[in-house]
Amino acid sequence: MAAKVKKLDGLFHDTLKDIYYAEKKILAALPKMAKAAQHPKLKEAFEKHRGQTEGQISRLEEVFAEIEAKPQGKKCDAIEGILAEGTEIMKEYKGSPSLDAGLLAAAQAVEHYEISRYGTLRAWADKLGLTDAVGLLGETLKEEEETDEILSKIAEDAVNAEAEDK
Amino acid sequence: MAAKVKKLDGLFHDTLKDIYYAEKKILAALPKMAKAAQHPKLKEAFEKHRGQTEGQISRLEEVFAEIEAKPQGKKCDAIEGILAEGTEIMKEYKGSPSLDAGLLAAAQAVEHYEISRYGTLRAWADKLGLTDAVGLLGETLKEEEETDEILSKIAEDAVNAEAEDK
Repeated sequence: MAAKVKKLDGLFHDTLKDIYYAEKKILAALPKMAKAAQHPKLKEAFEKHRGQTEGQISRLEEVFAEIEAKPQGKKCDAIEGILAEGTEIMKEYKGSPSLDAGLLAAAQAVEHYEISRYGTLRAWADKLGLTDAVGLLGETLKEEEETDEILSKIAEDAVNAEAEDK
Repeated sequence: MAAKVKKLDGLFHDTLKDIYYAEKKILAALPKMAKAAQHPKLKEAFEKHRGQTEGQISRLEEVFAEIEAKPQGKKCDAIEGILAEGTEIMKEYKGSPSLDAGLLAAAQAVEHYEISRYGTLRAWADKLGLTDAVGLLGETLKEEEETDEILSKIAEDAVNAEAEDK
């Protein structure tokens, strides 16, 4: 056992660093995904989400401020793995009518990772009495859930059909 | 561009192999998580989910049968990363009252990965006219969503409070 036993505030701080790292990786990946996307609606969704991601990073910085910690990332193996799968799809399905379907699947895996992280962080912020953080994390959670729904809708309307027909 | 352009059926098969690999990794991780968990409800949830995971693997094998393919895994970087974070939590928070909160967060990240994968696969199965697969994947999707809700409830009721109080 470590000399200093880590408690919920430590777990909150560690997980905040994890998602801060993840958001920065996502910010870097989104333009590549927008460039690769074939369907204009999907391109647009990735571009829009890039702007949102910048706002989400700012919110995380406000949460760091509330716990009086410097905004800092910590390598997040999960997002590295999830994004690696997206990169593989872009390579393997380049020129395929199914590329967009694969990109959508990769993006939805990213969204679900974020949904789980923000849900957890918001619950912990509540337990820790971090009033501002509850609001900030809740706002981002809502955006991620909406993005996931938008992606599902694009998949349903256009991209899956395209992948199937060609 | 590859000589053979991959289409939706190829993407479906690749993603099926991805989640088959992931489920087997999860099956191996769950007893370790159950052993590490402190709260009896959480131990029980992990043990119950282990049984469910066995059933989910069988369902995937039925889906492989429907597309006339051999059940086969393909290394899934995402689940490797997500589970690596869980292992880190077990090590770093051993002996801490917050261990369960960390385990819950790790388990919910796993559930959300699965929810995104099964959602995608079910939608593609529908497009591809794989009637049995739609039902099988939908059943598993429902189980994963329920597991996520159960974990949220445990976190809300017991574990977060415990992590905070001690």
